[in-house]
Amino acid sequence: MAIQVERLKGVVPPVVTPLTSSEELDEDGLRRLLEHLLEGGVHGLYMLGTTGEFPSLTNSVKVRAIELTSEEVGGEVPILAGAGETSTRRAVELAKQLEQAGADVIFSTPPFYFDYTQEELKDYYLMLADQLNTPVFLYNIPQLTRVALDPRTVRELAEDPRIVGIKDSSGDFGNYLEHIRTAGNADGFRSFIGSEVLAGASLIMGGHGVVASTANVVPGLWARLYERAAAGDVEGTRELEEKTRIVTGITEFGIAPSCKAGLEIMGITSRHVAAPHRALTDSEVGQVRAVLEEADVL
Amino acid sequence: MAIQVERLKGVVPPVVTPLTSSEELDEDGLRRLLEHLLEGGVHGLYMLGTTGEFPSLTNSVKVRAIELTSEEVGGEVPILAGAGETSTRRAVELAKQLEQAGADVIFSTPPFYFDYTQEELKDYYLMLADQLNTPVFLYNIPQLTRVALDPRTVRELAEDPRIVGIKDSSGDFGNYLEHIRTAGNADGFRSFIGSEVLAGASLIMGGHGVVASTANVVPGLWARLYERAAAGDVEGTRELEEKTRIVTGITEFGIAPSCKAGLEIMGITSRHVAAPHRALTDSEVGQVRAVLEEADVL
Amino acid sequence: MAIQVERLKGVVPPVVTPLTSSEELDEDGLRRLLEHLLEGGVHGLYMLGTTGEFPSLTNSVKVRAIELTSEEVGGEVPILAGAGETSTRRAVELAKQLEQAGADVIFSTPPFYFDYTQEELKDYYLMLADQLNTPVFLYNIPQLTRVALDPRTVRELAEDPRIVGIKDSSGDFGNYLEHIRTAGNADGFRSFIGSEVLAGASLIMGGHGVVASTANVVPGLWARLYERAAAGDVEGTRELEEKTRIVTGITEFGIAPSCKAGLEIMGITSRHVAAPHRALTDSEVGQVRAVLEEADVL
Amino acid sequence: MAIQVERLKGVVPPVVTPLTSSEELDEDGLRRLLEHLLEGGVHGLYMLGTTGEFPSLTNSVKVRAIELTSEEVGGEVPILAGAGETSTRRAVELAKQLEQAGADVIFSTPPFYFDYTQEELKDYYLMLADQLNTPVFLYNIPQLTRVALDPRTVRELAEDPRIVGIKDSSGDFGNYLEHIRTAGNADGFRSFIGSEVLAGASLIMGGHGVVASTANVVPGLWARLYERAAAGDVEGTRELEEKTRIVTGITEFGIAPSCKAGLEIMGITSRHVAAPHRALTDSEVGQVRAVLEEADVL
Repeated sequence: MAIQVERLKGVVPPVVTPLTSSEELDEDGLRRLLEHLLEGGVHGLYMLGTTGEFPSLTNSVKVRAIELTSEEVGGEVPILAGAGETSTRRAVELAKQLEQAGADVIFSTPPFYFDYTQEELKDYYLMLADQLNTPVFLYNIPQLTRVALDPRTVRELAEDPRIVGIKDSSGDFGNYLEHIRTAGNADGFRSFIGSEVLAGASLIMGGHGVVASTANVVPGLWARLYERAAAGDVEGTRELEEKTRIVTGITEFGIAPSCKAGLEIMGITSRHVAAPHRALTDSEVGQVRAVLEEADVL
Repeated sequence: MAIQVERLKGVVPPVVTPLTSSEELDEDGLRRLLEHLLEGGVHGLYMLGTTGEFPSLTNSVKVRAIELTSEEVGGEVPILAGAGETSTRRAVELAKQLEQAGADVIFSTPPFYFDYTQEELKDYYLMLADQLNTPVFLYNIPQLTRVALDPRTVRELAEDPRIVGIKDSSGDFGNYLEHIRTAGNADGFRSFIGSEVLAGASLIMGGHGVVASTANVVPGLWARLYERAAAGDVEGTRELEEKTRIVTGITEFGIAPSCKAGLEIMGITSRHVAAPHRALTDSEVGQVRAVLEEADVL
Repeated sequence: MAIQVERLKGVVPPVVTPLTSSEELDEDGLRRLLEHLLEGGVHGLYMLGTTGEFPSLTNSVKVRAIELTSEEVGGEVPILAGAGETSTRRAVELAKQLEQAGADVIFSTPPFYFDYTQEELKDYYLMLADQLNTPVFLYNIPQLTRVALDPRTVRELAEDPRIVGIKDSSGDFGNYLEHIRTAGNADGFRSFIGSEVLAGASLIMGGHGVVASTANVVPGLWARLYERAAAGDVEGTRELEEKTRIVTGITEFGIAPSCKAGLEIMGITSRHVAAPHRALTDSEVGQVRAVLEEADVL
Repeated sequence: MAIQVERLKGVVPPVVTPLTSSEELDEDGLRRLLEHLLEGGVHGLYMLGTTGEFPSLTNSVKVRAIELTSEEVGGEVPILAGAGETSTRRAVELAKQLEQAGADVIFSTPPFYFDYTQEELKDYYLMLADQLNTPVFLYNIPQLTRVALDPRTVRELAEDPRIVGIKDSSGDFGNYLEHIRTAGNADGFRSFIGSEVLAGASLIMGGHGVVASTANVVPGLWARLYERAAAGDVEGTRELEEKTRIVTGITEFGIAPSCKAGLEIMGITSRHVAAPHRALTDSEVGQVRAVLEEADVL
C-alpha cells in the first residue's frame, strides 16, 4: 500500500473521461486535461467517478484511462480510480485491472440496482479490500445508487486500515459532519465532499477534500478556495464562493455534458458523451460559455 | 425475426439463475429448473431479469445461461433474454452475445444509475433494435432503475415493428392500462405485467402475460390462474389468487433468494445468490417452507 | 345509524365547494351544482373531500355546505361529509357539527402533517366513531397526507360495524384489490376508488363506487360508465373510457380549479378557489373548454 | 412593529405545549417551563411550532398559550408564535388572534396538504403580512408539509421589510447557506436553523439562531454551544456537540413526546401529548432518562 493517506486531501476533481465520437478514449484530450488540472494546482485525481461517466464506459476504456493517467502523472498526485459496479464479483474483476493499470486508490459506490442491507454493503467493501493491494475509498451517492451508506457503517468500515476514506455526494451535511468525526477518531481515514455548494463549509468544519465537477474547468479557482477554507477563513471562503456558485450553474445542463462543453470551449477536449446521454447542443454550449464569461474565468 | 409475436403470452417466469457457491452457473440446476417450468405449463422464459439477478452476473455466466437454455428448450417456448446494462454501448455488446447464444427476444430495462430523458430512452431502445436481428422488449421497473418509461414513450416505441412488447413491474396499474391500450392499437405489441398482485386483474383487463417470480416455484398454479383470468373469469381468478397471494408472501425475504430457497426445498437447485446479497439462512428457509406448506404447494 | 350501507355505491362525486370571491359559500352555485349532479344520475355525494378543498375552508363554510346540501337533497342520495383535520380533537369537533348539519356518513383522511403509526391511525378512526352517531368512512390519499392506511389496518377497522367503507385515492391498485377482498369478507364495508384511470377496472374487479372529480362536470358520462363496468362489460367500459380519459385531462390544471372552470363554462358556478390557490386564468379556462369540446360533452 | 430584528437570534427553543390529560393547556406546567428556559439563558421562544404540536391543538389552546407566555415573559425575550394552517384564510384568522394575545412575531409553515407553486407561497406570506401588524417569519419543513420554500422564494420575500426571517428545518445545508447569504444581503432578515445536528455549523457559517427541540430540556447546554459557535470556535463547538448529539438521541421516540418525557423526568410538566399521538410508555421514559444520564444533564 504505497500511497500515504496524508496525500489524500485538497481539490481532487472527478475527472471527465474525454471520448471520441465513437466512444473510444480521446487520449490526446485526456493528456491536455491532465496538464490543465495539474497546472491549476489540484491535489489528486478522482478518475472514473460519476462525472467520469463510469457506468457508461466499457472496461477497456476505463483501464486505458487509468494506464494513460498513470503514465502521464503517476507519482505526482494520487490517482483514485472508480470500480463501481453492480455486484461484488463484477467490481473485483474491474478493480484488479485498474490496480494493475496504476491506480493508487480504488473507490466504489455501493453496488447499484438492487437494494442492499448495511451488512451486505460492509461485505462488499471488505471483499473488495481482501482482493486488492491498494487501499479502498467509499463513495456515497444515494440519489443515483438509491442505497445509502449509513454513517454508522462508514464508522465501522473506517476501523479497517485498508479503508482509507469516503467521498460523500449525498448533500446531507449532517451525515458529513459524522464522517468528519469518524475521520477525527480513525487515523488514516479521510473525508471528501462531492457537493460543490457544501465545499467551503465542509473544509471549515474539518473535512479533508473536495471533489468538485467544475474543477475540471476551473481547477485554479477551486485550489484558491481550498486554501482559504482549509485555513478557516469564513469570509475569504464566502468571497470565492461568489464565483464558484456561478460556475456551478453550468451543471444544470448535466454534469459531465456541461463540464465537457466547458472544456471544449477552452480547447482541451470535445463535448462527446456516452450514449444514450446526448452532448450539449450548440445553443447549450453557448449558454455554458455565457456562464463562464459571467464568472470571468475564460 | 423468427419469433411470432403471438407466441409471446401467458405465464413467462423470470427464471432464477442457479449458481454454484463460487457464482458459476449451476448447469444441472438450470436443466432441472427448465424441466420443472415446462412441465408446469409455462408459455415462455424471461431469462436474466431482475429475479435472474442480471446485474450481479458476469457476462460469461449470462451467455452460458442462454446457450444452455437454448440447447435444452429452444423452439419449445420463446426465450426472452435480458441485456439490461448501464449504457447503450455496454448493452449492445452484451445483447449481441445473447442473441448469438440463442435468445428469441432481447429485453432491457432503461440504462440505470444516471437520469435520462424520455428522448434518450427512445434513443437507447432504437439503437438496440438497430444493432440486433431479434426483436426488442421493453422493461419498466423504476423502483430499481429510478428512471421510468412513460406510457407515451412506450406508445411511440410500439410503433416500431422491432419493439414487440413491454414488461411493466412498476406496480402502477393506471399506466399498465395504457400499455394494454397501446397493445390494442399496435398489432404485434404485447403487454406483460411483473407484479404478482396485479396479475389476475391485468389479464382480465386485456393484458397478455404474467412475469411472476414465484412461478419459478409453482409454475402450474400460475398456469391455472392464467387460464381463468384470460377467460375473463373474475370469480375463478379470485379463488386461485387466494393461493398465489400466500406464495407471494415468500418474497418478503428478497425475490431471488426466496425463490431459490423454494427451489432448494424442492430439490431443484441451491439457495446460492450472487454477492453481496446473502442467501437465506436455514431459519429463513424454514419460514419459506412454512409458507409453501400453508399454500399446500409442496 | 340511519344510512343503509347498500346505498353506498355507484358514482359518488367529490363535490366542489362553490365559493364567492370573498371565499364564502356560493349558495346558489351549490344549489345549481346539486341539481346538475342528481340529474346526471349520481348515487351519492362526497362533500368536503380533496376536490371540495376541505383543508382550505373555514369550519363555518363547511357546516353551511352540508346544511344546504341536506336541505336540498337529503334523503335522495347519501351525503358523505369530510371531517379531515390535523388531530383527533380537531376532527371530532368538526365532525359533530357536520353530523348535526345533516351528514349521513362522516369520512376523514388520517390526520395530516405529522407521522403516525398504524396503531395511532386506528385510534383516530375508533375515537371518531366513539364520538359520533353516524358511520365513519376511511379515506386514503397518501400523496397528500404522507401517511398511508395500510390494507391490514383497513381490514382490522372494517371489522367494526361503525366503519363502513374506504375511499382509496392512492393509485395503488394492488392495495385496492385488498380492500375489495376486505369488503367481500366484511358485510357492511364498501370500497370506493378515487383514481379516475382505475375506475373501470376497480368496478370490474368488484369495487362498489367511484369518486371521480370530473363527475362534477360530466356526471352522466360517469353514470353510464358505472353501469357498464358494474355489469362486468370490459369492452363497453373501455369504449366509455375513451371519453372519460379525455375529460380527466382537464385536471392537469389542478383538480378543484379545473372542475370549477368546467362548471363555470357550463354556467353552474364560478371558478373561484380558496387562496393561496389561484383560479385558472382565462387562457387556461379556454384550454379546459377545448378539452371538453374534444370529448364532446358540452 | 415593535420588535427589533436584532433581538431575533441565539437559542430560541420550539417550546412544547404542556397539556393536561384532556388536552387542555397545562398552565402551571407552561409557567414552570418558561422559567426553566429563561433561567437556561434562551434568547427567544418559538411557540406553537412543530415541537409545540401546533397542528394538534385547538385554536383556543393556542391563543391561551400565547396569552400566558406574554403575561409571564413578554418583553423579556421575543415571543414568536406559529399560525401554520391549511389555507390563507384559516391562517389569517388564527394569526390575528395570536397577535392580539401578545405575539411579537408570527411564523408559519407553508399551508399544508395541497401542492402549491412558489408564486402561491409568496402570495400566502404577503397576504399574511398584509393582515397583520407584527412581522412575519418563514418556516421551511418540507419533510412534513411536502411543499418546500425555494431559496429563491426566500430571497424574494426577504426584500419585504415585514418578512423578518426564516427557520429552516429541512436539513438541506446547501439551501441554508443560501439563506445566510440572503440575510447578509437583506438588512433585517434572520436565518434560524431547525436541525440540531447542523446547529453548530450553521452558526459558524453565519446563521443567527438555533431552534433546537431538546433546548426544552437542556436550554443551558444549547446556550453554551451558541456562545462558542457564534464566536467561530470550531473546536469548542465540536466538544459541546459531543453532548448535544447524545441528548438529540432522545428524539428517536418522537420529538414532542420525548421532550415532554424529559421534562416530566425533571418535574416540569407531564408527558401528555395530543391524540392520536401516544405519550411515551414508562419503558420509553426510562430510556429517555438513560440517555439524559449518559449525557450527564440531569
